[in-house]
Amino acid sequence: MKTLKDINTRGPKSWNKEAYKAKNEVLFEEIAAMQRIMMAEQKQSLLIVLQGMDASGKDGTVRNIFSQANPNGCRVHSFKKPTDEEFAHDFLWRVHKVTPAKGMIQVFNRSHYEDILVPSVYGYIDKKVIKKRYEQINHFESLLEANGTKILKFYLHVSKDEQLERLKERVDNPLKYWKHNDGDWDTRERWDDFMDVYESIFKTCNTPRWHIVPADRNWVKVHYIAREIHKTMKKMNFKYPGLVSERFGSKA
Amino acid sequence: MKTLKDINTRGPKSWNKEAYKAKNEVLFEEIAAMQRIMMAEQKQSLLIVLQGMDASGKDGTVRNIFSQANPNGCRVHSFKKPTDEEFAHDFLWRVHKVTPAKGMIQVFNRSHYEDILVPSVYGYIDKKVIKKRYEQINHFESLLEANGTKILKFYLHVSKDEQLERLKERVDNPLKYWKHNDGDWDTRERWDDFMDVYESIFKTCNTPRWHIVPADRNWVKVHYIAREIHKTMKKMNFKYPGLVSERFGSKA
Repeated sequence: MKTLKDINTRGPKSWNKEAYKAKNEVLFEEIAAMQRIMMAEQKQSLLIVLQGMDASGKDGTVRNIFSQANPNGCRVHSFKKPTDEEFAHDFLWRVHKVTPAKGMIQVFNRSHYEDILVPSVYGYIDKKVIKKRYEQINHFESLLEANGTKILKFYLHVSKDEQLERLKERVDNPLKYWKHNDGDWDTRERWDDFMDVYESIFKTCNTPRWHIVPADRNWVKVHYIAREIHKTMKKMNFKYPGLVSERFGSKA
Repeated sequence: MKTLKDINTRGPKSWNKEAYKAKNEVLFEEIAAMQRIMMAEQKQSLLIVLQGMDASGKDGTVRNIFSQANPNGCRVHSFKKPTDEEFAHDFLWRVHKVTPAKGMIQVFNRSHYEDILVPSVYGYIDKKVIKKRYEQINHFESLLEANGTKILKFYLHVSKDEQLERLKERVDNPLKYWKHNDGDWDTRERWDDFMDVYESIFKTCNTPRWHIVPADRNWVKVHYIAREIHKTMKKMNFKYPGLVSERFGSKA
Protein backbone atom coordinates (compact mmCIF):
# COMPACT_ATOMS: atom_id res chain seq x y z
CA MET A 1 0.00 0.00 0.00
CA LYS A 2 1.22 3.53 -0.78
CA THR A 3 1.90 5.70 2.23
CA LEU A 4 -0.25 8.80 2.58
CA LYS A 5 2.73 10.97 1.60
CA ASP A 6 2.71 9.45 -1.86
CA ILE A 7 -0.98 10.04 -2.41
CA ASN A 8 -1.95 13.19 -4.25
CA THR A 9 -3.94 15.71 -2.19
CA ARG A 10 -5.11 17.87 -5.11
CA GLY A 11 -6.85 15.40 -7.42
CA PRO A 12 -6.52 15.17 -11.25
CA LYS A 13 -4.89 18.19 -12.90
CA SER A 14 -7.10 17.92 -15.96
CA TRP A 15 -10.34 18.58 -14.06
CA ASN A 16 -12.05 21.88 -14.79
CA LYS A 17 -13.44 23.61 -11.75
CA GLU A 18 -16.64 25.02 -13.29
CA ALA A 19 -17.47 21.79 -15.06
CA TYR A 20 -17.02 19.78 -11.87
CA LYS A 21 -19.01 22.19 -9.76
CA ALA A 22 -21.87 21.71 -12.20
CA LYS A 23 -21.48 17.92 -12.00
CA ASN A 24 -21.58 18.21 -8.21
CA GLU A 25 -24.90 20.04 -8.29
CA VAL A 26 -26.40 17.21 -10.31
CA LEU A 27 -25.05 14.67 -7.83
CA PHE A 28 -26.57 16.58 -4.89
CA GLU A 29 -29.97 16.60 -6.57
CA GLU A 30 -29.90 12.92 -7.35
CA ILE A 31 -28.72 12.06 -3.86
CA ALA A 32 -31.63 14.04 -2.44
CA ALA A 33 -34.06 12.26 -4.76
CA MET A 34 -32.78 8.84 -3.69
CA GLN A 35 -32.92 9.86 -0.06
CA ARG A 36 -36.66 10.58 -0.34
CA ILE A 37 -37.24 6.97 -1.41
CA MET A 38 -34.83 5.70 1.23
CA MET A 39 -36.95 7.39 3.92
CA ALA A 40 -40.13 5.94 2.49
CA GLU A 41 -38.67 2.47 2.18
CA GLN A 42 -37.35 2.48 5.77
CA LYS A 43 -35.30 -0.67 5.38
CA GLN A 44 -31.69 0.34 4.96
CA SER A 45 -29.49 2.99 6.49
CA LEU A 46 -26.30 4.77 5.54
CA LEU A 47 -23.48 5.75 7.86
CA ILE A 48 -20.89 8.17 6.52
CA VAL A 49 -17.69 8.47 8.52
CA LEU A 50 -15.57 11.57 7.92
CA GLN A 51 -12.05 11.62 9.28
CA GLY A 52 -9.22 14.02 8.56
CA MET A 53 -6.79 16.44 10.17
CA ASP A 54 -8.05 19.81 11.44
CA ALA A 55 -9.17 22.14 8.63
CA SER A 56 -9.41 19.27 6.16
CA GLY A 57 -12.96 20.38 5.40
CA LYS A 58 -15.18 17.86 7.18
CA ASP A 59 -17.93 20.34 8.10
CA GLY A 60 -18.13 21.88 4.65
CA THR A 61 -18.51 18.47 3.05
CA VAL A 62 -21.73 17.71 4.83
CA ARG A 63 -23.17 21.18 4.27
CA ASN A 64 -22.56 20.83 0.54
CA ILE A 65 -23.52 17.31 -0.31
CA PHE A 66 -26.75 17.14 1.67
CA SER A 67 -27.80 20.71 0.89
CA GLN A 68 -30.89 19.42 -0.88
CA ALA A 69 -31.62 16.36 1.22
CA ASN A 70 -34.52 16.17 3.68
CA PRO A 71 -32.89 17.10 6.98
CA ASN A 72 -35.45 14.95 8.75
CA GLY A 73 -33.76 11.86 7.37
CA CYS A 74 -30.17 13.02 7.54
CA ARG A 75 -28.34 13.76 10.76
CA VAL A 76 -24.81 14.84 11.57
CA HIS A 77 -23.06 14.01 14.79
CA SER A 78 -19.76 15.69 15.70
CA PHE A 79 -17.68 13.73 18.16
CA LYS A 80 -15.86 15.96 20.64
CA LYS A 81 -13.74 15.13 23.62
CA PRO A 82 -15.77 12.55 25.59
CA THR A 83 -17.85 13.80 28.51
CA ASP A 84 -17.47 12.34 32.01
CA GLU A 85 -20.49 10.11 31.39
CA GLU A 86 -19.06 8.90 28.08
CA PHE A 87 -15.67 8.22 29.65
CA ALA A 88 -17.41 6.07 32.24
CA HIS A 89 -18.42 3.60 29.49
CA ASP A 90 -16.61 1.65 26.79
CA PHE A 91 -15.53 3.84 23.85
CA LEU A 92 -18.22 2.51 21.52
CA TRP A 93 -21.09 3.29 23.90
CA ARG A 94 -21.57 6.87 22.74
CA VAL A 95 -21.06 5.84 19.12
CA HIS A 96 -23.60 3.04 19.10
CA LYS A 97 -26.26 5.38 20.51
CA VAL A 98 -26.12 7.61 17.43
CA THR A 99 -26.03 4.98 14.70
CA PRO A 100 -28.72 5.47 12.04
CA ALA A 101 -32.18 3.93 12.22
CA LYS A 102 -33.54 2.22 9.11
CA GLY A 103 -34.30 4.81 6.45
CA MET A 104 -31.81 7.34 7.86
CA ILE A 105 -28.49 8.80 6.78
CA GLN A 106 -26.09 9.53 9.63
CA VAL A 107 -22.88 11.47 9.15
CA PHE A 108 -20.11 11.14 11.73
CA ASN A 109 -17.88 14.20 11.83
CA ARG A 110 -14.95 12.39 13.44
CA SER A 111 -15.82 9.02 14.91
CA HIS A 112 -14.74 5.99 16.93
CA TYR A 113 -11.44 6.18 15.02
CA GLU A 114 -10.46 9.14 17.19
CA ASP A 115 -10.35 6.62 20.06
CA ILE A 116 -7.48 4.93 18.28
CA LEU A 117 -5.82 8.06 16.86
CA VAL A 118 -5.54 10.30 19.88
CA PRO A 119 -4.37 7.76 22.47
CA SER A 120 -1.93 6.24 19.95
CA VAL A 121 -0.27 9.59 19.27
CA TYR A 122 -0.25 10.87 22.85
CA GLY A 123 0.33 7.49 24.44
CA TYR A 124 -2.02 7.79 27.41
CA ILE A 125 -3.63 4.37 26.91
CA ASP A 126 -1.89 1.00 27.08
CA LYS A 127 -0.89 -0.22 23.61
CA LYS A 128 -2.60 -3.56 24.16
CA VAL A 129 -5.88 -1.81 24.89
CA ILE A 130 -5.55 0.25 21.71
CA LYS A 131 -4.70 -2.84 19.69
CA LYS A 132 -7.90 -4.46 20.89
CA ARG A 133 -9.88 -1.43 19.74
CA TYR A 134 -9.07 -2.16 16.10
CA GLU A 135 -10.73 -5.52 16.48
CA GLN A 136 -13.62 -4.13 18.52
CA ILE A 137 -14.27 -1.56 15.79
CA ASN A 138 -14.28 -4.27 13.13
CA HIS A 139 -16.83 -6.29 15.09
CA PHE A 140 -18.93 -3.20 15.70
CA GLU A 141 -18.99 -2.17 12.04
CA SER A 142 -19.80 -5.72 11.03
CA LEU A 143 -22.76 -5.75 13.45
CA LEU A 144 -24.10 -2.58 11.84
CA GLU A 145 -23.60 -3.85 8.30
CA ALA A 146 -25.32 -7.15 9.15
CA ASN A 147 -28.32 -5.09 10.15
CA GLY A 148 -28.65 -3.24 6.84
CA THR A 149 -26.43 -0.24 7.54
CA LYS A 150 -24.08 0.58 4.70
CA ILE A 151 -20.90 2.26 5.99
CA LEU A 152 -18.82 4.67 3.89
CA LYS A 153 -15.53 5.80 5.40
CA PHE A 154 -13.70 8.83 4.01
CA TYR A 155 -10.30 10.17 4.92
CA LEU A 156 -10.04 13.83 3.85
CA HIS A 157 -6.47 13.97 2.69
CA VAL A 158 -5.12 17.51 2.96
CA SER A 159 -1.44 18.42 2.56
CA LYS A 160 0.48 19.87 5.46
CA ASP A 161 1.04 23.07 3.46
CA GLU A 162 -2.62 23.51 2.62
CA GLN A 163 -3.54 22.97 6.26
CA LEU A 164 -1.09 25.72 7.23
CA GLU A 165 -2.81 28.14 4.82
CA ARG A 166 -6.19 27.34 6.30
CA LEU A 167 -5.10 27.56 9.93
CA LYS A 168 -3.43 30.91 9.22
CA GLU A 169 -6.57 32.24 7.63
CA ARG A 170 -8.38 31.50 10.88
CA VAL A 171 -6.20 33.98 12.76
CA ASP A 172 -6.11 36.56 9.93
CA ASN A 173 -9.71 36.69 8.72
CA PRO A 174 -12.20 38.06 11.29
CA LEU A 175 -14.98 36.01 9.72
CA LYS A 176 -13.00 32.86 10.48
CA TYR A 177 -11.75 33.71 13.98
CA TRP A 178 -14.49 31.46 15.38
CA LYS A 179 -12.88 28.47 13.75
CA HIS A 180 -9.53 29.04 15.42
CA ASN A 181 -8.41 26.68 18.14
CA ASP A 182 -4.93 26.75 19.70
CA GLY A 183 -5.10 22.99 20.00
CA ASP A 184 -5.09 22.56 16.20
CA TRP A 185 -1.54 23.97 16.12
CA ASP A 186 -0.41 21.48 18.75
CA THR A 187 -1.95 18.62 16.81
CA ARG A 188 -0.19 19.86 13.68
CA GLU A 189 3.16 19.32 15.40
CA ARG A 190 2.39 15.61 15.62
CA TRP A 191 1.44 15.39 11.91
CA ASP A 192 3.67 12.43 11.04
CA ASP A 193 2.56 10.48 14.06
CA PHE A 194 -1.06 10.93 13.04
CA MET A 195 -0.26 9.81 9.50
CA ASP A 196 1.33 6.62 10.85
CA VAL A 197 -1.73 5.78 12.89
CA TYR A 198 -4.05 6.54 9.99
CA GLU A 199 -2.08 4.16 7.84
CA SER A 200 -2.37 1.39 10.35
CA ILE A 201 -6.13 2.06 10.59
CA PHE A 202 -6.52 1.85 6.81
CA LYS A 203 -4.72 -1.47 6.89
CA THR A 204 -6.48 -3.07 9.84
CA CYS A 205 -10.00 -1.65 9.63
CA ASN A 206 -10.61 -1.84 5.92
CA THR A 207 -13.90 -3.78 5.87
CA PRO A 208 -15.80 -1.74 4.84
CA ARG A 209 -13.01 0.00 2.97
CA TRP A 210 -11.58 3.47 3.41
CA HIS A 211 -11.72 6.07 0.66
CA ILE A 212 -8.74 8.45 0.58
CA VAL A 213 -10.07 11.75 -0.75
CA PRO A 214 -7.81 14.50 -2.19
CA ALA A 215 -8.94 17.43 -0.05
CA ASP A 216 -6.76 20.41 -0.93
CA ARG A 217 -9.43 21.73 -3.29
CA ASN A 218 -12.98 21.74 -1.93
CA TRP A 219 -14.84 21.04 -5.15
CA VAL A 220 -12.55 18.07 -5.88
CA LYS A 221 -13.07 16.67 -2.40
CA VAL A 222 -16.82 17.15 -2.66
CA HIS A 223 -16.87 15.47 -6.04
CA TYR A 224 -15.08 12.37 -4.81
CA ILE A 225 -17.33 11.98 -1.82
CA ALA A 226 -20.61 12.84 -3.54
CA ARG A 227 -19.81 10.43 -6.36
CA GLU A 228 -19.15 7.63 -3.91
CA ILE A 229 -22.31 8.31 -1.92
CA HIS A 230 -24.30 8.49 -5.14
CA LYS A 231 -22.89 5.19 -6.39
CA THR A 232 -23.56 3.50 -3.07
CA MET A 233 -27.13 4.75 -2.74
CA LYS A 234 -27.85 3.68 -6.29
CA LYS A 235 -26.68 0.16 -5.46
CA MET A 236 -28.86 0.16 -2.35
CA ASN A 237 -31.71 0.31 -4.82
CA PHE A 238 -34.37 1.91 -2.63
CA LYS A 239 -38.00 1.19 -3.52
CA TYR A 240 -41.22 2.85 -2.50
CA PRO A 241 -43.03 0.25 -0.37
CA GLY A 242 -46.42 -1.16 -1.35
CA LEU A 243 -49.70 -0.01 0.19
CA VAL A 244 -50.64 -1.86 3.36
CA SER A 245 -54.23 -1.21 4.37
CA GLU A 246 -57.13 -3.19 5.74
CA ARG A 247 -59.57 -0.58 4.51
CA PHE A 248 -58.31 -0.23 0.95
CA GLY A 249 -56.57 -3.56 0.49
CA SER A 250 -52.86 -4.00 0.01
CA LYS A 251 -51.15 -3.05 -3.25
CA ALA A 252 -47.59 -3.80 -4.35
CA MET B 1 -23.09 -31.10 29.33
CA LYS B 2 -26.23 -32.16 31.18
CA THR B 3 -29.48 -31.06 29.60
CA LEU B 4 -31.65 -28.72 31.63
CA LYS B 5 -34.11 -31.55 32.31
CA ASP B 6 -31.44 -33.36 34.31
CA ILE B 7 -30.60 -30.37 36.43
CA ASN B 8 -32.33 -30.09 39.78
CA THR B 9 -34.68 -27.11 40.14
CA ARG B 10 -35.07 -27.28 43.93
CA GLY B 11 -31.51 -27.17 45.23
CA PRO B 12 -29.96 -29.29 48.02
CA LYS B 13 -32.46 -31.18 50.17
CA SER B 14 -30.37 -30.76 53.28
CA TRP B 15 -30.66 -26.98 53.33
CA ASN B 16 -32.69 -25.52 56.16
CA LYS B 17 -34.93 -22.65 55.13
CA GLU B 18 -34.56 -20.49 58.24
CA ALA B 19 -30.81 -20.95 58.39
CA TYR B 20 -30.42 -20.00 54.75
CA LYS B 21 -32.70 -17.01 54.99
CA ALA B 22 -30.44 -15.75 57.76
CA LYS B 23 -27.37 -16.37 55.64
CA ASN B 24 -29.02 -14.43 52.83
CA GLU B 25 -29.53 -11.41 55.05
CA VAL B 26 -25.84 -11.37 55.84
CA LEU B 27 -24.99 -11.60 52.16
CA PHE B 28 -27.30 -8.66 51.34
CA GLU B 29 -25.61 -6.53 53.97
CA GLU B 30 -22.13 -7.33 52.78
CA ILE B 31 -23.09 -6.76 49.15
CA ALA B 32 -24.44 -3.33 50.11
CA ALA B 33 -21.24 -2.53 52.00
CA MET B 34 -19.06 -3.47 49.02
CA GLN B 35 -21.30 -1.48 46.71
CA ARG B 36 -20.65 1.69 48.70
CA ILE B 37 -16.92 1.31 48.03
CA MET B 38 -17.57 0.38 44.40
CA MET B 39 -19.40 3.69 43.91
CA ALA B 40 -16.59 5.62 45.55
CA GLU B 41 -13.91 3.85 43.56
CA GLN B 42 -15.70 4.43 40.24
CA LYS B 43 -13.45 2.15 38.24
CA GLN B 44 -15.31 -1.10 37.66
CA SER B 45 -18.88 -2.01 36.91
CA LEU B 46 -21.08 -5.05 37.29
CA LEU B 47 -23.69 -6.28 34.87
CA ILE B 48 -26.11 -8.93 36.11
CA VAL B 49 -28.14 -10.71 33.45
CA LEU B 50 -31.27 -12.55 34.62
CA GLN B 51 -32.94 -14.93 32.22
CA GLY B 52 -35.65 -17.49 32.86
CA MET B 53 -39.14 -18.56 31.84
CA ASP B 54 -42.15 -16.51 32.95
CA ALA B 55 -42.74 -16.67 36.71
CA SER B 56 -39.23 -17.95 37.37
CA GLY B 57 -38.81 -15.11 39.85
CA LYS B 58 -36.59 -12.59 38.08
CA ASP B 59 -38.23 -9.52 39.61
CA GLY B 60 -38.19 -10.86 43.15
CA THR B 61 -34.50 -11.65 42.92
CA VAL B 62 -33.51 -8.06 42.37
CA ARG B 63 -35.87 -6.75 45.04
CA ASN B 64 -34.33 -9.10 47.56
CA ILE B 65 -30.64 -9.03 46.91
CA PHE B 66 -30.22 -5.29 46.50
CA SER B 67 -32.71 -4.38 49.24
CA GLN B 68 -29.94 -2.70 51.19
CA ALA B 69 -27.85 -1.34 48.34
CA ASN B 70 -27.69 2.34 47.42
CA PRO B 71 -30.27 2.62 44.64
CA ASN B 72 -28.27 5.49 43.17
CA GLY B 73 -25.60 3.03 42.13
CA CYS B 74 -27.80 0.11 41.18
CA ARG B 75 -30.25 0.15 38.32
CA VAL B 76 -32.60 -2.41 36.85
CA HIS B 77 -33.65 -2.45 33.24
CA SER B 78 -36.49 -4.71 32.08
CA PHE B 79 -36.39 -5.52 28.40
CA LYS B 80 -39.84 -5.66 26.84
CA LYS B 81 -40.95 -6.14 23.26
CA PRO B 82 -38.80 -3.70 21.26
CA THR B 83 -40.35 -0.33 20.36
CA ASP B 84 -40.51 0.88 16.76
CA GLU B 85 -37.40 2.96 17.30
CA GLU B 86 -35.55 -0.01 18.79
CA PHE B 87 -36.62 -2.27 15.93
CA ALA B 88 -35.19 0.28 13.51
CA HIS B 89 -31.68 -0.43 14.87
CA ASP B 90 -29.52 -3.51 15.36
CA PHE B 91 -30.64 -5.64 18.32
CA LEU B 92 -27.74 -4.57 20.54
CA TRP B 93 -28.42 -0.85 20.13
CA ARG B 94 -30.94 -0.63 22.97
CA VAL B 95 -28.83 -2.92 25.12
CA HIS B 96 -25.58 -1.02 24.76
CA LYS B 97 -27.32 2.22 25.79
CA VAL B 98 -28.14 0.83 29.24
CA THR B 99 -24.83 -0.84 30.09
CA PRO B 100 -23.40 0.26 33.44
CA ALA B 101 -21.04 3.21 33.88
CA LYS B 102 -17.94 2.71 36.01
CA GLY B 103 -18.93 2.34 39.67
CA MET B 104 -22.45 1.12 38.83
CA ILE B 105 -24.37 -2.15 39.10
CA GLN B 106 -26.84 -2.77 36.30
CA VAL B 107 -29.36 -5.60 36.39
CA PHE B 108 -30.92 -6.80 33.15
CA ASN B 109 -34.33 -8.37 33.70
CA ARG B 110 -34.29 -10.31 30.43
CA SER B 111 -31.64 -9.19 27.98
CA HIS B 112 -30.12 -9.45 24.51
CA TYR B 113 -30.58 -13.23 24.85
CA GLU B 114 -34.29 -12.73 24.19
CA ASP B 115 -33.24 -11.69 20.69
CA ILE B 116 -31.99 -15.22 20.17
CA LEU B 117 -34.69 -17.03 22.16
CA VAL B 118 -37.88 -15.57 20.76
CA PRO B 119 -37.03 -15.61 17.04
CA SER B 120 -35.51 -19.10 17.37
CA VAL B 121 -38.68 -20.53 18.88
CA TYR B 122 -41.17 -18.68 16.67
CA GLY B 123 -39.01 -18.75 13.57
CA TYR B 124 -39.67 -15.25 12.26
CA ILE B 125 -36.02 -14.43 11.62
CA ASP B 126 -33.69 -16.21 9.19
CA LYS B 127 -31.62 -18.88 10.96
CA LYS B 128 -28.38 -17.47 9.57
CA VAL B 129 -29.15 -14.08 11.09
CA ILE B 130 -29.84 -15.70 14.46
CA LYS B 131 -26.65 -17.73 14.23
CA LYS B 132 -24.69 -14.53 13.73
CA ARG B 133 -26.27 -13.07 16.86
CA TYR B 134 -24.49 -15.61 19.07
CA GLU B 135 -21.19 -14.32 17.77
CA GLN B 136 -22.27 -10.68 17.95
CA ILE B 137 -23.25 -11.17 21.58
CA ASN B 138 -19.87 -12.75 22.35
CA HIS B 139 -18.06 -9.78 20.82
CA PHE B 140 -20.33 -7.34 22.62
CA GLU B 141 -19.81 -8.94 26.02
CA SER B 142 -16.09 -9.11 25.43
CA LEU B 143 -16.05 -5.36 24.64
CA LEU B 144 -17.77 -4.66 27.94
CA GLU B 145 -15.47 -6.94 29.92
CA ALA B 146 -12.38 -5.37 28.31
CA ASN B 147 -13.61 -2.06 29.68
CA GLY B 148 -13.85 -3.19 33.30
CA THR B 149 -17.43 -4.49 33.35
CA LYS B 150 -17.80 -7.82 35.08
CA ILE B 151 -20.76 -9.78 33.67
CA LEU B 152 -22.70 -12.36 35.69
CA LYS B 153 -25.31 -14.37 33.80
CA PHE B 154 -27.98 -16.33 35.66
CA TYR B 155 -30.57 -18.71 34.29
CA LEU B 156 -33.42 -19.07 36.80
CA HIS B 157 -34.23 -22.73 36.42
CA VAL B 158 -37.83 -23.39 37.41
CA SER B 159 -39.63 -26.70 36.74
CA LYS B 160 -42.59 -26.82 34.43
CA ASP B 161 -44.80 -27.95 37.35
CA GLU B 162 -43.70 -25.13 39.61
CA GLN B 163 -44.33 -22.63 36.83
CA LEU B 164 -47.86 -24.01 36.46
CA GLU B 165 -48.51 -23.44 40.19
CA ARG B 166 -47.29 -19.88 39.91
CA LEU B 167 -49.22 -19.04 36.77
CA LYS B 168 -52.39 -20.51 38.29
CA GLU B 169 -51.95 -18.39 41.39
CA ARG B 170 -51.98 -15.33 39.16
CA VAL B 171 -55.54 -16.08 38.06
CA ASP B 172 -56.71 -17.27 41.50
CA ASN B 173 -55.26 -14.73 43.89
CA PRO B 174 -56.66 -11.19 43.49
CA LEU B 175 -53.40 -9.73 44.80
CA LYS B 176 -51.57 -11.39 41.92
CA TYR B 177 -54.05 -10.70 39.09
CA TRP B 178 -51.77 -7.86 37.94
CA LYS B 179 -49.04 -10.35 37.16
CA HIS B 180 -51.22 -12.38 34.84
CA ASN B 181 -50.55 -12.28 31.13
CA ASP B 182 -52.31 -14.54 28.62
CA GLY B 183 -49.10 -14.63 26.62
CA ASP B 184 -47.28 -16.51 29.40
CA TRP B 185 -49.60 -19.49 28.79
CA ASP B 186 -48.79 -19.44 25.09
CA THR B 187 -45.06 -19.34 25.82
CA ARG B 188 -45.50 -22.26 28.21
CA GLU B 189 -46.75 -24.39 25.33
CA ARG B 190 -43.37 -23.99 23.66
CA TRP B 191 -41.47 -24.98 26.83
CA ASP B 192 -39.27 -27.65 25.25
CA ASP B 193 -38.36 -25.39 22.34
CA PHE B 194 -37.24 -22.70 24.74
CA MET B 195 -35.16 -25.24 26.68
CA ASP B 196 -33.41 -26.29 23.48
CA VAL B 197 -32.48 -22.72 22.63
CA TYR B 198 -31.32 -22.04 26.17
CA GLU B 199 -29.05 -25.04 25.96
CA SER B 200 -27.51 -23.84 22.75
CA ILE B 201 -27.00 -20.40 24.32
CA PHE B 202 -25.25 -21.92 27.36
CA LYS B 203 -22.96 -23.78 25.00
CA THR B 204 -22.13 -20.99 22.57
CA CYS B 205 -22.18 -17.88 24.76
CA ASN B 206 -20.40 -19.17 27.82
CA THR B 207 -17.66 -16.53 28.18
CA PRO B 208 -18.45 -15.17 30.71
CA ARG B 209 -20.12 -18.33 31.94
CA TRP B 210 -23.76 -19.00 32.73
CA HIS B 211 -24.94 -19.95 36.19
CA ILE B 212 -27.92 -22.33 36.28
CA VAL B 213 -29.86 -21.49 39.43
CA PRO B 214 -32.41 -23.87 41.02
CA ALA B 215 -35.41 -21.54 41.19
CA ASP B 216 -38.36 -23.56 42.50
CA ARG B 217 -37.78 -22.25 46.00
CA ASN B 218 -37.18 -18.51 46.30
CA TRP B 219 -34.77 -18.53 49.22
CA VAL B 220 -32.63 -21.16 47.48
CA LYS B 221 -32.58 -19.17 44.26
CA VAL B 222 -31.72 -15.99 46.13
CA HIS B 223 -28.96 -17.76 48.00
CA TYR B 224 -27.29 -19.05 44.85
CA ILE B 225 -27.38 -15.67 43.16
CA ALA B 226 -26.44 -13.57 46.18
CA ARG B 227 -23.52 -15.88 46.94
CA GLU B 228 -22.21 -15.55 43.40
CA ILE B 229 -22.57 -11.77 43.36
CA HIS B 230 -20.88 -11.59 46.75
CA LYS B 231 -17.98 -13.74 45.60
CA THR B 232 -17.56 -11.73 42.42
CA MET B 233 -17.65 -8.34 44.14
CA LYS B 234 -15.15 -9.55 46.69
CA LYS B 235 -12.77 -10.51 43.88
CA MET B 236 -13.26 -7.11 42.26
CA ASN B 237 -11.55 -5.82 45.38
CA PHE B 238 -12.95 -2.29 45.44
CA LYS B 239 -10.84 0.36 47.17
CA TYR B 240 -11.67 3.83 48.41
CA PRO B 241 -9.64 6.16 46.17
CA GLY B 242 -6.99 8.50 47.54
CA LEU B 243 -7.55 12.20 48.15
CA VAL B 244 -6.85 14.38 45.10
CA SER B 245 -6.68 18.05 46.01
CA GLU B 246 -4.55 21.03 45.10
CA ARG B 247 -5.62 22.82 48.25
CA PHE B 248 -4.97 20.03 50.75
CA GLY B 249 -2.42 17.99 48.82
CA SER B 250 -3.01 14.47 47.59
CA LYS B 251 -3.13 11.50 49.92
CA ALA B 252 -3.15 7.81 49.06
